[in-house]
Amino acid sequence: MDTDARRPIVDLTEEQARRALPLKWGVPEGVLPAWVAEMDYAVDPVVMDAVQGALAEGITGYPLERDPRLGEAYAGWAARHFGWAPDPEAVREVVDVTAGVRVAIDVLSGPGGVVFPTPGYNAQHGLAQVTGRAEHLLEVPTSAERCEIDLDALERLFAEGAQTLLLTQPHNPWGRVFTRAELEGIRDVVVRHGARVVSDEIHAPLVLPGAEHVSYLSIEGTHDHAVAVVAASKAFNTAGLRCAQLVVPSAADRARLDAQPMSRNDSWSPLGVVAARSAYDLGDPWLASLVERLDEQRTLLASLLAEHLPEVRMRPLEATYLAWLDASAYGHDDAAAVALERGRVQVSPGDSYAPGTTGHVRLNIATSPARLTEIVERLAKAWR
Amino acid sequence: MDTDARRPIVDLTEEQARRALPLKWGVPEGVLPAWVAEMDYAVDPVVMDAVQGALAEGITGYPLERDPRLGEAYAGWAARHFGWAPDPEAVREVVDVTAGVRVAIDVLSGPGGVVFPTPGYNAQHGLAQVTGRAEHLLEVPTSAERCEIDLDALERLFAEGAQTLLLTQPHNPWGRVFTRAELEGIRDVVVRHGARVVSDEIHAPLVLPGAEHVSYLSIEGTHDHAVAVVAASKAFNTAGLRCAQLVVPSAADRARLDAQPMSRNDSWSPLGVVAARSAYDLGDPWLASLVERLDEQRTLLASLLAEHLPEVRMRPLEATYLAWLDASAYGHDDAAAVALERGRVQVSPGDSYAPGTTGHVRLNIATSPARLTEIVERLAKAWR
Repeated sequence: MDTDARRPIVDLTEEQARRALPLKWGVPEGVLPAWVAEMDYAVDPVVMDAVQGALAEGITGYPLERDPRLGEAYAGWAARHFGWAPDPEAVREVVDVTAGVRVAIDVLSGPGGVVFPTPGYNAQHGLAQVTGRAEHLLEVPTSAERCEIDLDALERLFAEGAQTLLLTQPHNPWGRVFTRAELEGIRDVVVRHGARVVSDEIHAPLVLPGAEHVSYLSIEGTHDHAVAVVAASKAFNTAGLRCAQLVVPSAADRARLDAQPMSRNDSWSPLGVVAARSAYDLGDPWLASLVERLDEQRTLLASLLAEHLPEVRMRPLEATYLAWLDASAYGHDDAAAVALERGRVQVSPGDSYAPGTTGHVRLNIATSPARLTEIVERLAKAWR
Repeated sequence: MDTDARRPIVDLTEEQARRALPLKWGVPEGVLPAWVAEMDYAVDPVVMDAVQGALAEGITGYPLERDPRLGEAYAGWAARHFGWAPDPEAVREVVDVTAGVRVAIDVLSGPGGVVFPTPGYNAQHGLAQVTGRAEHLLEVPTSAERCEIDLDALERLFAEGAQTLLLTQPHNPWGRVFTRAELEGIRDVVVRHGARVVSDEIHAPLVLPGAEHVSYLSIEGTHDHAVAVVAASKAFNTAGLRCAQLVVPSAADRARLDAQPMSRNDSWSPLGVVAARSAYDLGDPWLASLVERLDEQRTLLASLLAEHLPEVRMRPLEATYLAWLDASAYGHDDAAAVALERGRVQVSPGDSYAPGTTGHVRLNIATSPARLTEIVERLAKAWR
């Protein structure tokens, strides 16, 4: 593959975005959406062609129980991008990442609670409860210089009876990419307590220059207690096509999963499989452009904040297009509500990621430079 | 709507079917597939156009949390086809019917066991276990003249602690369409025990001439204890597009469902919503042709069996394109295995629907007359 090859990022006009992204852009006229994790960019045309081609052949029915080409595609992708790849045999289809986390906990974890570091992905709050387990929040204080998993706190929660850590690597909304050393520290605590890890790595393709994705599964001594949940859908804007993947390195764990009743996990779409395979096999030239764009947006955000909202605190964004902003210096009880009412910008409210952080918001920067500029200017008007 | 309008059924060639239906047709060269519930017909072009149009607009991301047009479309469809319609507000998206059954039991049912009439849909065997509940089989003896829910047996299972009946109306693989009187009898037992009903009505559009679909929810006194799970996907061959619907007539039940964490139920596809809406709104002229074709296939099957396999017992097929054949008179230990080995026909083995019924198979007749003829001739060669 020509690693210098590029396909450009195409910005959606507002009219196009309203049609293509009905949830994100389902905001009132005049409101700019910077909330749910979707990008205002056209889907990679190579991936779109593959999906349209599948649909033209009439592929609207059941997918294969397992498509070996998907495991091969993911393994090739992981080897190229992350320098570590699972056995293609270790890959299993699931409908989406959160469903994959759920099935992994349901089937593989002990009945003890689930450790959920917060701020944490809003859609996964309550997931412990859905699996019939207690939720143990592992809080990163809003004042922390750097978002880290506090190993002493982790130790304590396992001692209290938790048996699973839900790791998000890279982290949403922290924007952190955990280093090998950090992951080894986590592993040591996990192993000491005989606990399990479910590592949600959906943002791995969106690691920005300066950081490097390390899969938890690439750490020695993790295969008997961990699975990763991966997907092309976040980086390629195809969440609605419905296919993520579980990477299950332990043959014994695979046997337990494969022995489950069909009703536990059979809801992915064949179009999602096609999208994932084409993204993994053919998406590099588009992803390279995307990462470049997101890197530029990150730089632009920093300068916009410095100019318009100098009191906003933000830790370095190492991955994702989701910035976790502490706007509490501006003194609003509910920063997101003020952003919407006075600024006509829809951001995600902090307290859907961590209880009580109503002075924080999550800001989606995956849009055009002009729109991001407008968004920050509006936030400044609202908050200052 | 012009009720005489028709769009024809287009048979897929073997080459087209192998591309469009990779699971069903993922059989070895030379084997004819008559197993999984998909039809060898091209998707209704109107539905296909709608899905292709959505994809062309770039709709690959998250669906709306609730699309009110879907509830309206289903209510309109139900009123036209079944003479009873829910409030459009009662309709909720789920990823597929089995996931809908699961979420209904998880959230709305008591912790007691689930009554599962057998033979029963293979993908739903084990569903009780997945919800953490005991499974109580309510067996219809293979010798029964007519497949009915034995109300005394139902009474007994509720008395033993079961709290939910998983009803399949019309039934797969019985081919039965329960009458209003039968449903009232079921309701009386359910009400007496304060139990719940989840009514899987995915086959309702495939009721054949001579029978009439009665939704369990159209029976008086059911709204406080029942939900229906419905979909356009079975009748329109779009299972892979991933959207079914829960019909939840009780406002209190809806409030409980709506209060669940997102991770309980957020995996449907926006393309599935588009497919369902277009099928409900615009699919009548195609469905009319389909039902006509399936009626012809049912007649053809009867004459083929009379000619080639006179010892096969089969109860009247009132709905669905799935025939439940008792081939035990031919004396094979595993009728499905013999069909595959000696006849090169893949049918669904009986014992995946009811333990021990290895002399039975489920036969999918939704194909061309020529292929159905070939299938039955091959079965005759294999079994006789």
